Amino acid sequence: MRDHIELNDHERAWENLAVTYMTLQRARDLELGQMGLTIPQAAVLYMLKATEEPLTPMKLSRRLNRQPHTVSALLTRMETQGLVKTNRDLQRKNWVRVSLTKKGEAAFKRQLSARTSLNATSCLSKKEIDTLNATCKKLRVKGVELIRQMQRGPYSDPLFQ
Amino acid sequence: MRDHIELNDHERAWENLAVTYMTLQRARDLELGQMGLTIPQAAVLYMLKATEEPLTPMKLSRRLNRQPHTVSALLTRMETQGLVKTNRDLQRKNWVRVSLTKKGEAAFKRQLSARTSLNATSCLSKKEIDTLNATCKKLRVKGVELIRQMQRGPYSDPLFQ
Repeated sequence: MRDHIELNDHERAWENLAVTYMTLQRARDLELGQMGLTIPQAAVLYMLKATEEPLTPMKLSRRLNRQPHTVSALLTRMETQGLVKTNRDLQRKNWVRVSLTKKGEAAFKRQLSARTSLNATSCLSKKEIDTLNATCKKLRVKGVELIRQMQRGPYSDPLFQ
Repeated sequence: MRDHIELNDHERAWENLAVTYMTLQRARDLELGQMGLTIPQAAVLYMLKATEEPLTPMKLSRRLNRQPHTVSALLTRMETQGLVKTNRDLQRKNWVRVSLTKKGEAAFKRQLSARTSLNATSCLSKKEIDTLNATCKKLRVKGVELIRQMQRGPYSDPLFQ
């Protein structure tokens, strides 16, 4: 059975990268958890803070690359915690606009001081970081190319449906 | 406002790695989507296939590093789709054992042929892959160290609560 699951060098590198990212993400999650936040919550606070234009749940869902129902549940929890508020747009009544509350602003500022895990590459030399950045750039180009190829397929491109 | 969000070289490298991983993950997600699967579903199929011991929802949740309620919802969907079945353990009635159905076995075999995105590092040279693996190893060690430090904290270690 196991011989089906054997990985080649590329697949091992992929798994390696995945496990590394998930380990670092877990560290970030614990760090944010110490201030009562999760990674998606911190991402929402960041987006609301960094963007000038009004954000709807749909726009947030696109930027977070998450399903609309996942973002909707996330926002409901954050509203209950008093971190964000949602208001119907006066011009377009079916639009909901999400914004930070004072408590959300405070949470955003608090998490800015929790950045130890974001500095994990401090264990690398300047040269190693440069090489990592260059490798990541190549991998992103490859990733985007793969995504485009698959989105052009007959089952995923809305133009062909 | 924006000067609060400025990142140093390490934080930029972290973000770089995160965006790269998420791009590759999106490619993998689309690839699996073409066979009607998601990444967590493929991970469950893989674990059920690769492990000899009986798996409970709790064990799966630990191995997937996901909340029990998330895994429970995932398994419910997969059971509805006919990919897995759950049986109460005869010895320990409060134990539920998860196993693959024939349809799940077939889905597992099908997704083994969809590995283009897992070979994304084919755009790198052998030397670049070796360097990436070495860098990932250092970052994982650092990540695990950060996790241990935080889990030793007064709020997260059950021994101190």
